[in-house]
Amino acid sequence: MQFGLFGGARTKRGTGLEDSQGYESFIDYVIEADRLGFKHLFMVEHHFTGQGQVSASMTVLAYLAARTTRIRLGTAVVVLPWHNPVLVAEQVATLDLLSGGRVDLGVGKGYRQAEFDGFCIPMAEASERFDEAMEVIRKGWTAHEESASGRFSHHGKRWHYDDIVVEPAPLQRPHPPLWLAAGSPDSIRRAARDGYNLLLDQLAQTDQIGRRIALFREECGKAGRAWDANMVATARPLQMIHGEAERAAAWATRKRVVGVIGDLARDALPARIEDDTAPLLGTPDEVIARLRELEALGATNILLVDPNASVANLQAFAREVMPAFAATRQQSIVPLAGTDRGDRGENSTETLRKLRDEWER
Amino acid sequence: MQFGLFGGARTKRGTGLEDSQGYESFIDYVIEADRLGFKHLFMVEHHFTGQGQVSASMTVLAYLAARTTRIRLGTAVVVLPWHNPVLVAEQVATLDLLSGGRVDLGVGKGYRQAEFDGFCIPMAEASERFDEAMEVIRKGWTAHEESASGRFSHHGKRWHYDDIVVEPAPLQRPHPPLWLAAGSPDSIRRAARDGYNLLLDQLAQTDQIGRRIALFREECGKAGRAWDANMVATARPLQMIHGEAERAAAWATRKRVVGVIGDLARDALPARIEDDTAPLLGTPDEVIARLRELEALGATNILLVDPNASVANLQAFAREVMPAFAATRQQSIVPLAGTDRGDRGENSTETLRKLRDEWER
Repeated sequence: MQFGLFGGARTKRGTGLEDSQGYESFIDYVIEADRLGFKHLFMVEHHFTGQGQVSASMTVLAYLAARTTRIRLGTAVVVLPWHNPVLVAEQVATLDLLSGGRVDLGVGKGYRQAEFDGFCIPMAEASERFDEAMEVIRKGWTAHEESASGRFSHHGKRWHYDDIVVEPAPLQRPHPPLWLAAGSPDSIRRAARDGYNLLLDQLAQTDQIGRRIALFREECGKAGRAWDANMVATARPLQMIHGEAERAAAWATRKRVVGVIGDLARDALPARIEDDTAPLLGTPDEVIARLRELEALGATNILLVDPNASVANLQAFAREVMPAFAATRQQSIVPLAGTDRGDRGENSTETLRKLRDEWER
Repeated sequence: MQFGLFGGARTKRGTGLEDSQGYESFIDYVIEADRLGFKHLFMVEHHFTGQGQVSASMTVLAYLAARTTRIRLGTAVVVLPWHNPVLVAEQVATLDLLSGGRVDLGVGKGYRQAEFDGFCIPMAEASERFDEAMEVIRKGWTAHEESASGRFSHHGKRWHYDDIVVEPAPLQRPHPPLWLAAGSPDSIRRAARDGYNLLLDQLAQTDQIGRRIALFREECGKAGRAWDANMVATARPLQMIHGEAERAAAWATRKRVVGVIGDLARDALPARIEDDTAPLLGTPDEVIARLRELEALGATNILLVDPNASVANLQAFAREVMPAFAATRQQSIVPLAGTDRGDRGENSTETLRKLRDEWER
């Protein structure tokens, strides 16, 4: 098991000072996570929210690159339809250099109507804009592998470039890992086929997580991609409690959060909020038990979602939960490449058990 | 007098490792400049050069914001025709927050044909694209002053936005200082009229610098702008020598540099390279003398241009030149606001002498 963060600064938009404090506390949170051994940060990017969500994610991540040493710096996600793809490729490559190769590039086509309206871009164009942008970004990086000059041209529907080179080249070759948030079988198949890693959302239930990972693994096998358990990252809300008195309030908070973001759920949520298996909600022992269920399903790369970005919650998790997984943590970063070509039809959990046995022998 | 830097990382493009080293040495250079009391960094941004010039300037400056404490972080320049202006406004405001209000935004319409060709944007559209982008960027920031929501719309020739808000708001209100590189009388008048600070280029001769500052000051007066000597920054190549044996080689280097960048000169260069008054070329005493000439003309905010970004050169300058100006350095950061309304017709040098006298009394 390995643990990371999913989230971002959020400020009450208003005076610059308030905005600044929102960013500062988020930065402190990430620095502490780095110190505690968290492996990933995936930071959201949104525009025009009125709630001070991070809009310039590469700018914030570049600052964090200088303040941290080990944690990987991810976007979740850069919505490509708003961006000139060559400028994205330059920014990501620059961040990759500055961070010593710690970048994970999460990309998306966007889902918030208000953002499309703000940019005056029809949502109906999202997919074709995404596809063209990814084509340009990949070309910009892989051109360095194909010729000494790294130059290429692109003439598409929205973007035109003549004889350009994306500088600098990223440190990770040919480029940083690409991540796609996906939930439906079709989108998971596409992520596997097109070489993406998989971000699983914070609302999906435990059994859904298991099914999605199994499908993704199967499809990666079909696409000839070597399997590594860390090609999937699973966002899970963290709401640890330390006594029964806190439980009702925690579920009430959960209910409120689901009310706000529930429209994003890709599958039906349980009728009774207390049956919701998505959050890591409970005492440390209960959180450990929930994580063991996820681990058994292959979800060994967990991104904690704490909307308060609380350093205290992070420290409590590191103290009370992470030690239970210390023995298996090393294992999860061993690439499992080349070991699953014959396992395609097998149950994902069973496969992982076998691999673990092999490792421990 | 105060001193800063003008330049940027430049790498032999190739393997990621080489690129990375180019950035690392530039970062060390800026960190040392911050330690030595340099006031400004103005960093260039270019695309598709094949020489590894910085392309993602805000990303690099955000990293530097975390590694420095006092030096101001400037762009020189963001070429607006390539950028979605709202994304620029978001990035700059984010950098301003992260740096504690240390951002200077230099903007330009672009001058390199190869960049326009690369982006497939006709150079003939540069001015209108620049104008529209600046309109959007200014709106994005000043809208925070005009309503609690900070929301606005824009429907122009190239860009459309509906009911958006640029988040975060910058820390410097209403926005970071805007800088324009200008040399011709018309462009200097425009910079003064439109509220820009003035970047003077590294090729202009000392007497040209004096005339440009005098004109800018006069035009700022006409526009009702309070005068501050630090509204002008003058780029000067640094080529300090420590013995006659080095002089010929220094002029040879100068000749080569002018050969490469001379096409950018806005005025005729001297026929004999040794008559070129632009570089700070000579022994420490000669460099001090050249700086005293500039100081007398009102050029009290000098940006050193050292294409090698050499820490040793920086330290030598700080040790051998800066102490000569220690007495006047404090003075130059005192805003001269409100003192020049009656001086418009006067000789700029004379005016500055009077002000200095007033200050020293």
